[in-house]
Amino acid sequence: MRPLLKQSLETTSPGLQPLLALLQAQLKSVNSCILEKMESSVSLIPQIAGYLISLGGKRLRPLLTLSSAELCGYRGTRHIALAACVEFIHTATLLHDDVVDESMLRRGMRTANSLWSNKESVLVGDFLFSRAFELMVADGSLEILNILSHASSAISEGEILQLSMSHSLELTQDTYLKIIEAKTARLFSAATEVGAVIANAPEPQRKALAQFGLSLGIAFQLMDDVLDYTANQEQLGKTIGDDFREGKVTLPIILAYHKGIGISFWEEMITKKTRDQQELQQALYLLNKSNALAESKGMAETFVKNALECLAKFSPSPLKSALEELAHFSLYREM
Amino acid sequence: MRPLLKQSLETTSPGLQPLLALLQAQLKSVNSCILEKMESSVSLIPQIAGYLISLGGKRLRPLLTLSSAELCGYRGTRHIALAACVEFIHTATLLHDDVVDESMLRRGMRTANSLWSNKESVLVGDFLFSRAFELMVADGSLEILNILSHASSAISEGEILQLSMSHSLELTQDTYLKIIEAKTARLFSAATEVGAVIANAPEPQRKALAQFGLSLGIAFQLMDDVLDYTANQEQLGKTIGDDFREGKVTLPIILAYHKGIGISFWEEMITKKTRDQQELQQALYLLNKSNALAESKGMAETFVKNALECLAKFSPSPLKSALEELAHFSLYREM
Repeated sequence: MRPLLKQSLETTSPGLQPLLALLQAQLKSVNSCILEKMESSVSLIPQIAGYLISLGGKRLRPLLTLSSAELCGYRGTRHIALAACVEFIHTATLLHDDVVDESMLRRGMRTANSLWSNKESVLVGDFLFSRAFELMVADGSLEILNILSHASSAISEGEILQLSMSHSLELTQDTYLKIIEAKTARLFSAATEVGAVIANAPEPQRKALAQFGLSLGIAFQLMDDVLDYTANQEQLGKTIGDDFREGKVTLPIILAYHKGIGISFWEEMITKKTRDQQELQQALYLLNKSNALAESKGMAETFVKNALECLAKFSPSPLKSALEELAHFSLYREM
Repeated sequence: MRPLLKQSLETTSPGLQPLLALLQAQLKSVNSCILEKMESSVSLIPQIAGYLISLGGKRLRPLLTLSSAELCGYRGTRHIALAACVEFIHTATLLHDDVVDESMLRRGMRTANSLWSNKESVLVGDFLFSRAFELMVADGSLEILNILSHASSAISEGEILQLSMSHSLELTQDTYLKIIEAKTARLFSAATEVGAVIANAPEPQRKALAQFGLSLGIAFQLMDDVLDYTANQEQLGKTIGDDFREGKVTLPIILAYHKGIGISFWEEMITKKTRDQQELQQALYLLNKSNALAESKGMAETFVKNALECLAKFSPSPLKSALEELAHFSLYREM
């Protein structure tokens, strides 16, 4: 069994620190719940799941559930297991993503499918997903089951749409946004909405928090796709230009292509089997020349603005400020 | 979109015919529900899911839900969507199984991962699994969600245990039984129990039907593993000796090995990378000499006997006779 979870103030991105400082005790309970629910007499399960979860990650989605509940004045303990459940769904998705993308590294650490094999990743992903549903059922609210089962379904639909479209220049900005909303933002939104539901928040608050999660999730994914071209490599913990090398079309390429900047270059790149370092340099040149990276970031800013407006419904508090900080952080983070 | 579902009296195994004759109208509704719930704006989903479901299969698990509900006097319509839901879980499992086993054929037809790729199989499996949960949530019973979420979790635990043990002669008969109960019989049992639950059947009937499903599922899997060595190849629609060629240890090998029949042969076989036709002949010789195939079938007979005892709680009816026929069929089927 892998050792402790590494989440702590020291190792976390600056934009998350205010939120973590406020919710550290609760997040500790979430981490204990995660470890407890990964237990199984089949030792491969805690081994792989423990490896994954011990990698840390930002625990962003559980933090959203915790903060949303707290913001709506929740005083019970249901948010702990539900936050764990959201993290299980996310981790299951990552495991299956890495199989689909044939990734070897995630945040600079080896992926489970490179350490074990695709087989283990598929099956342990299924286990985590099932365990997430067991946790929801144990919580006992059909309303929450409804939110999270729709989110799960949207995630896999988004992933499949991405698989069938992401290597094609026919991918439009609208479809791209539909994909990132489904595969990323819906779980952010479910995470925040669940917090409001257990707190019995009035409908406008609940809707505002669900929309906050959705906009924040879209902004995060937009920035992920921008950072893939612009990030500080060491801090991101992954290679620059992964999407380009994999022939994956994201918003920056869509924008450049539809502006007519480098049309024949992009068409050639997308049909080639592999793309080299020199071609990545050319891609970066065109993405900057067309202003596509800046415009993609501009779109992320629009969604962050929308996220901040959703928070306007809540009275000032340290937690609200921490969530605002998180929304800003999505634009300026390096990882 | 693939055409119609092929389930019909003509193409079905004889042991299932009485059950199908009684439940054909209801099964037709289940098939419509399956097709309807596979709809998605992402066209790859109905394509792959439709291909899988159109392959037919026995629709054994939905038939169990339908017959269990009927046996307990149920008169509503909830069993239709729940039977579809059970089939979705089963189909999702098959998709991921074929990725894990790297199978090219299933029942003589090409597997989805050989027609599309592992990526599609992983993601469409996830979609079907999520859709199954949406169906359950829409049904609205926490009791049923409890049964089916535990069954799903047991399936993936069983699959992982199998993955970590099935290529080792350290696999004992007890662990083997634990694996097949988890990966196969738990869903059979959930399928029958769900039928009893929606009918508000008294506790003893519900328990009897859950146990009927469990014993039947174990018998089916035991016979699957025997048929892998003895089946009529054309009727089974798969190659004889697949398990052996893949180096997979199932009950027949466990029994022969623990009787000391061919110890060094089995130890050599399990460490080799591949096993040829001549070695398969030798394996068959040893499995017959040690009586391991007959004893495995004998164990299946014990579980069928238990399944039949569970039905004894119900008054005579054509449906009860059809279920008895099904239990017998598990022993004498060719596919």
